[in-house]
This record gives sequence, structure tokens and C-alpha cells, in this order.
Amino acid sequence: MRHLLDTRTLSRADALNILDVAEDMADTQLREVKKLPTLRGKTVVNLFFEDSTRTRISFEAAAKRLSADVINFSAKGSSVSKGESLKDTAQTLAAIGADAVVIRHGASGAPHTLAASGWIDAGILNAGDGTHEHPTQALLDAFTMRRRIHGAGASRGRDLDGVHVVIVGDILHSRVARSNVWLLASLGAQVTLVAPPTLLPVGIEGWPATVSYDLDVVLAENPDVVMMLRIQGERMHDAFFPNSREYSRRWGLDDERLARLTGDSIVMHPGPMNRGLEISSGAADSPRSTVLEQVSSGVSVRMAALYLLLSGEREDQR
Amino acid sequence: MRHLLDTRTLSRADALNILDVAEDMADTQLREVKKLPTLRGKTVVNLFFEDSTRTRISFEAAAKRLSADVINFSAKGSSVSKGESLKDTAQTLAAIGADAVVIRHGASGAPHTLAASGWIDAGILNAGDGTHEHPTQALLDAFTMRRRIHGAGASRGRDLDGVHVVIVGDILHSRVARSNVWLLASLGAQVTLVAPPTLLPVGIEGWPATVSYDLDVVLAENPDVVMMLRIQGERMHDAFFPNSREYSRRWGLDDERLARLTGDSIVMHPGPMNRGLEISSGAADSPRSTVLEQVSSGVSVRMAALYLLLSGEREDQR
Amino acid sequence: MRHLLDTRTLSRADALNILDVAEDMADTQLREVKKLPTLRGKTVVNLFFEDSTRTRISFEAAAKRLSADVINFSAKGSSVSKGESLKDTAQTLAAIGADAVVIRHGASGAPHTLAASGWIDAGILNAGDGTHEHPTQALLDAFTMRRRIHGAGASRGRDLDGVHVVIVGDILHSRVARSNVWLLASLGAQVTLVAPPTLLPVGIEGWPATVSYDLDVVLAENPDVVMMLRIQGERMHDAFFPNSREYSRRWGLDDERLARLTGDSIVMHPGPMNRGLEISSGAADSPRSTVLEQVSSGVSVRMAALYLLLSGEREDQR
Repeated sequence: MRHLLDTRTLSRADALNILDVAEDMADTQLREVKKLPTLRGKTVVNLFFEDSTRTRISFEAAAKRLSADVINFSAKGSSVSKGESLKDTAQTLAAIGADAVVIRHGASGAPHTLAASGWIDAGILNAGDGTHEHPTQALLDAFTMRRRIHGAGASRGRDLDGVHVVIVGDILHSRVARSNVWLLASLGAQVTLVAPPTLLPVGIEGWPATVSYDLDVVLAENPDVVMMLRIQGERMHDAFFPNSREYSRRWGLDDERLARLTGDSIVMHPGPMNRGLEISSGAADSPRSTVLEQVSSGVSVRMAALYLLLSGEREDQR
Repeated sequence: MRHLLDTRTLSRADALNILDVAEDMADTQLREVKKLPTLRGKTVVNLFFEDSTRTRISFEAAAKRLSADVINFSAKGSSVSKGESLKDTAQTLAAIGADAVVIRHGASGAPHTLAASGWIDAGILNAGDGTHEHPTQALLDAFTMRRRIHGAGASRGRDLDGVHVVIVGDILHSRVARSNVWLLASLGAQVTLVAPPTLLPVGIEGWPATVSYDLDVVLAENPDVVMMLRIQGERMHDAFFPNSREYSRRWGLDDERLARLTGDSIVMHPGPMNRGLEISSGAADSPRSTVLEQVSSGVSVRMAALYLLLSGEREDQR
Repeated sequence: MRHLLDTRTLSRADALNILDVAEDMADTQLREVKKLPTLRGKTVVNLFFEDSTRTRISFEAAAKRLSADVINFSAKGSSVSKGESLKDTAQTLAAIGADAVVIRHGASGAPHTLAASGWIDAGILNAGDGTHEHPTQALLDAFTMRRRIHGAGASRGRDLDGVHVVIVGDILHSRVARSNVWLLASLGAQVTLVAPPTLLPVGIEGWPATVSYDLDVVLAENPDVVMMLRIQGERMHDAFFPNSREYSRRWGLDDERLARLTGDSIVMHPGPMNRGLEISSGAADSPRSTVLEQVSSGVSVRMAALYLLLSGEREDQR
């Protein structure tokens, strides 16, 4: 792999490879091998145009466990904020010798621009771009689902064929939802999106997913996975947004809805959670919840992605 | 040791153990062994809800000398500032594999909450919580006193029996004062607190210390240690706070008071100093001053604390 | 070398030594030796009183390639911004064991103050002080020129005798211009400064350089190097500053002027560029442009400077 930009164009084979390598990475943690020498001498730059402490430290922890050097570059207050172009920033990072650039950017497509530009030879990892994609989030979600469904020791090589995943919330603005929809389709899952009508994007008919406005109807179908999206506080003041009480009542996973889940169905959330809004504390902390597994899966998946982009395999595929 | 949360409940034996291990750490520096492999592969997270560059870089230097990986997490501008709970932050750090969390928090008790919660298995080091405690500051102060009084080579195993320590300033808001009072009492020192009446806390009668409002009377007793507290600029506008000229005249260590010190008595300050306010430049830079020894002691003491929390000894005590 | 504070007092021999060691550093990169053990156990502190992501990450990358530990200390929001003196900051860094301090400061002379003070024994590297100097920028510029003119493999030991360098822009406020003027004079180059009359400093008659107000006249002399300075956005509102259209028309390197360059003459810019203002995109991206070579030279030169200040050679010269 050269880059990890999205899940929409990520092949099923590449996706399964990342998930399997992530299993290897998780194994090294289990065996108390806390540090691998694999990426010694490689430089990973975290280029963050938007704040995201959680995603940044997850990539930082992943890179350091592989013995890479990490340079954090917060674009706020930098020459970037003084109008430097993405091109000049990218070329600067290339010239200082960055081997991988983990980029979070407010503009959809910025990581693709970087990867397609020729400005920089480094591997580009999309850590969230606008409302477009957040591929490592979807991969860590799939990793977590696979382990819950097939068992941690029996996940390698397995896909999510026939698994029913419900994604609930502000689909319109969610890059997490988009990345999950494409990846889950590749892996054979059946996806239902549940949202207020005003929070669904134009063109959703073309997505490989079913759409519903009624969470209770969908929950009655006994889905395997219920993934709640984070409500962005800044959206709550939009005219088309339901007020929070209304939102919580109709689209929140409260204790009562949690109680209706059956079998081994699981509850997911990308974090950080608004407890009491899109998810109750009861749901967040229940045995069905995979919220913490998702975070630790994130380190394994990001180790896998960095490894595949920066190790020998990358050279072979050039 | 599992955690280092306060000095009030820190046993005398544990305190002396930290101080003795800190002597070993200081020795490695002397012998130009700048880096120890002890904590290779361990991850230390600096979780700072309040800015404190000095304390953060002291812990960072200590962790790096022990070969740990350090991840800095400034809670400002992070999801924490967007209302994420301490619980969710802690669980996130646990899930990314933090072995120790150095926490500075504006709320008294936050480190205890973290340690008692079960949210995270990491060792918790309190780097200052509200007006409650700042235990590594008190330990580095004790380490510095012990070395000045007994000599660096003869400090191991020694306590501060009979040493007279005067702590001067805004006791009411000072976590440094609190941590020192409890630790000094454990180590056998005799403590006198000197402050304006409005800057003494309710319940001070229960502290193992004598209280005075008159610095000159106390200095006439020839104390071994005079510890000046930092005046927080933001307090100066409080109604109950003396103005700065008045403060300096009555409770500041000026050159004239410095001249009255006798024998080997020392002058301490946790830094950063307001020169000309609570301490004169003459006092800050005099041979009696231990201000810089305190900073270097800080690295040794924090190395010791990280070592004791993260090395094999910790496992034994679980 | 003990410190690297300016190019004005840097001897020709020391300058050539830095450039030659930088060639060695660049060679290790070429040979894919990405990490050298040279500075293992050394601590480099980036003490930045002004934001400068580019310079900071260049020094950080250089230090990490030499296996040093790097501690970033942004003075914003720290106790420094609360009025702590440079003295106390320096002594703190000394006490935590800093071996080198890379300092950027808004006040001209701050690095010299630090080096002359005795407050700290560490090697001091000036990363830009007020309108005074930015010596590593001039060294990386000279390194880049030398390689373009003599060839990368044939640069060692060579100077810039007889090379004609034109520096264009806001000379008045530019530390980059100053550092270049002194270093280029030491290395035997002939320097012409081109600027609006209001953007030339008092006393420029004493500089080892010719002054001109007319860029086109100077370009007609077929200079070997045309170095464009960055226009600081905040200057544009000064009364004595030409407006940006006027500036660009008279002192900008546009495509038309670029076309008039002859032979192997090169175009330099310290970055970040204001494309369309002091330099056109055509000029910035042309084969004559060394902008990216300058950035990668920066890492080599800073590795060399850190090595010379922190390795055994330093001890010998104490």
C-alpha cells in the first residue's frame, strides 16, 4: 500500500490485510512486547489542521510502539495559518524527510490532494478530512466487530458477511459514517442508516445501505451492531437540527432501548461520547459496549497501517 | 507503590524509599550515564488540564532519561474541553496503553478519583490538583533539604528529624504548602507556617504545624529552612489579599531579612519566582538559595517515582 | 564550538567546518542511514518564544536523527508568559539537564545574553532573534549555493569566492538578510541588497554589500543567486511600506523577470513563500528554484551544528 486515504476505494483484500496485520500487532501487545523495532529511523509527522487529541495520541502511540520518530505539527498558529499553501507545507515535510504524514484537515479531499500531487513521496494517512472519510476509524470499528463476532483468536481472514450494522445519528456531517458504509459493504455487512430526515445527505440512495427514520423499528430487527454517532455540539444550533431533548428521545440509545437488544448484539461509539444525549451511561458502560475495545483496536489498526505503508511491502508495490 | 497521589497518606517508609531511589538516579547523572534503559517500552502520558511548562518538562525529562515514551496531552482545545468526562479520558488513555499518567488538574481530588476508579490500570502521579496536593514538589523539597543538611553522599536513609522549616505565603491556596506539611511531619521536621491571617485555611489547627503571622519573629528563631511560596498574580486582585507593596514588606524575603539568617539555613522557592515580590533577587541568587537544586532534584525524584510505579517492584505489590 | 549565535562573529574556518560536517550528514541520509547514535542521551530543548513550526520541526528532525531526546518548550502560555525572567527559564533548563537550547526569541540579542550569562552551561543555538540574526538559515543557504555551484560531491572545503548574490526585499526587518550578509562576506561572495528605500536599515553603508533600489538593473548583471525575502503580512500595513501590488511590480520575482535570468543562476527563498507577492509560482517551482533543497539542507546543517556543539569536539574546546 502506498497511502490510506479512504475506504471507498480500498480493496477488500487490502482491508482484510490491514485487519490481519492489526491482529498481529494486537498479539505483540498481549505478549507484553511493548516496542517493535520495525520503523526505527522512520519519521511520522502528525499534521493536524483541526484539533483532535484522541486521534493524534492514538497515531502517536502506534508510531512510537513501532519505534518511529514522531513530530507533531499543529497547523494552528503556524505559517500554515498565515496562508501557506498545502503544497508548500507538503514539500517542506518532504524535504525534512517525513516518511509518513498523518493528516487531519477540515477540507474534504485534502489527503487525496496530497497523495496525488507529487509534492511529497511519503505515505499519506487520512486521519479525517471534512465530511468525507476517516478510514482508520472504520477499520478499527471493523476490527472490533470481527473480534466480537468471531472471537479474537478466530478473526484472521474473516469478513463481516451477513452482519447487520445499524448506524444512528448525524449521517449528513459524519465522515465516520461514510467510511464505515464503504468498508462494511466491502466486507459483506448489511448496513442500515437511521437519522432525522434533515441529517441525511443528498444522494444517499446511491449508498450501499438502507435508510430509516425510525430507530425503534430498526432495533426490532435485532441488528448485530448498533453504532451511535457523536453529536457535534456546534451542530445543535443549526435550524435543521432537532433540539437535544427531542434528539435524545427519538434517536438516542437510552437504557430502555438498550434493554431491548438481544443475543450478542453490540453497541459502538467512536468517542468522545455525549453521555445522556446520543447514548446513555447505561449503554456506554454495558457489557454490550465496545467503546474501549474500539480505542485499543485503534492503536493496533494504526500500527498495521503505518507498518504496511512504511515497511518493505510498500517498496514492493511501488 | 501503585500510585503517588499525596504525601498525607504516603508512609514514612515509602517516602524515604523514593528519596533514596532518587539518590541513585542523581548518581547516574553524576556518572554521566544520561539514559537508563529501565522503562523502555513503557508509555507515560502527561495529562495536563492546567498549563505548567516547568512541571511538564521535568516529568518529560525524567521519563525520557528512563527511556520511556512520552505522550503530551494538553486538555485545552481537546475533546476534554468539549465536555468529555474524566472517566472517558482515563479509559481512552488505558485503551491506548498508558503505563503511567501524570495528571495536573484544577479540581482537588481528581488524581485520587482516577486512581480509585478502576477506569485505568496505569500508575497515577499527581502533578498538582487544585489547592490539594503536589506531592513530587514536596518530595523534591525534602530531597534538597536532606542533601543540604546531611550532605549529598550521606543522605541515604536519613530523615529530617528536628529540622525547623518555615513556610511563608499564601498557605490558603497552596498545594505545595499542604504537601510539604504532611511530608515534613512524616520525616520528623518541625514546621511553622507564616501568612497573612486572610491567607490561612479554615481547620489549620489540625495541621501538624505551628502558625504565625509575623515573619520577623519566626526568623529570629533561626530556622534551618525558609521556604517562600509563589504569589499567584491572579490572587492579587482578591479583596482579602494585601496589596503587593504591603505583602512584600511584611511577608517577603528581602535582602534585609536574608542578612539576618544564620548558620547554614537555606532559602527555598518552588518557582517560578516573582523577584521583588515574595523574594528579592538577592535572596533568590544567594548561596543559601536552593532554587536550582530544587529543579534538578525534581528530575531525580520524578525518575524515582516513575521507576517505583512502573518497574518490577510495582508488580510485587499489587 | 560552544554556541552558534550569529554569523557576524563566526569564523570562516568554523563556517566551513559546519558546512563540511553538514555534507557528511547529508551523505548519511543518502545512504539510507536514517538514524545516527551520536547524541544518544543528550537532551535538546526547543525554547520558542515566537511560533515557528518550520524551524522547530527542522531542529526537531535534526536532533532526533542524531538520537537526541527533544523537549519542546513553547513559551506561550507558560510561566514565561506570566513574567518569568529569561534568567530563571535558563537556569531551569540547566537544572533539568538540557545539553543544548535552540532558542527563538522576539528580542534581538536574547541568545547572546543566554550564552554569555553563565546561567546555563548548554550549547545555545540561535533560531532567530528579533531583527538580528538567524545563523542556521544563512548556513543552509550557503550550503545550498555551494552544492548548486560546485556540485554536491565536490563542495567540501570550497567557499563562495566571487559568487554574486542578490538579496531582495525587506532588508530592514530581516534577520535572514543580516545573517546572509555576514556569512557570504566571510565566504568570499559579493552581495547586492535590493529594497525599497524605506526598507533599508540605517548604517547599511557599513555592511559588506552593495545597495540598489532597482531590481531590473541588478538582474541585468547576471547574478549567480537571487534570494527573495519573505514579506511579513503584518508589515504591509506600515505607512512606509509599499502596497502589495506596487511591491510585487517593482521588487517581486515574477515570471517575466525569471525569464531574464541566465546561465545556472538560482532562485532562493527562506519560506514560507507568499506566492504572487514577492515571488511568482513560476519562479518558486522553476528548475532554478532551490526552495526545497534549502529545507532539506536545513536538516543537514542543523544536524551538523548540534553535532559540533554537543559531541566530543565541544569538550576539547572548552
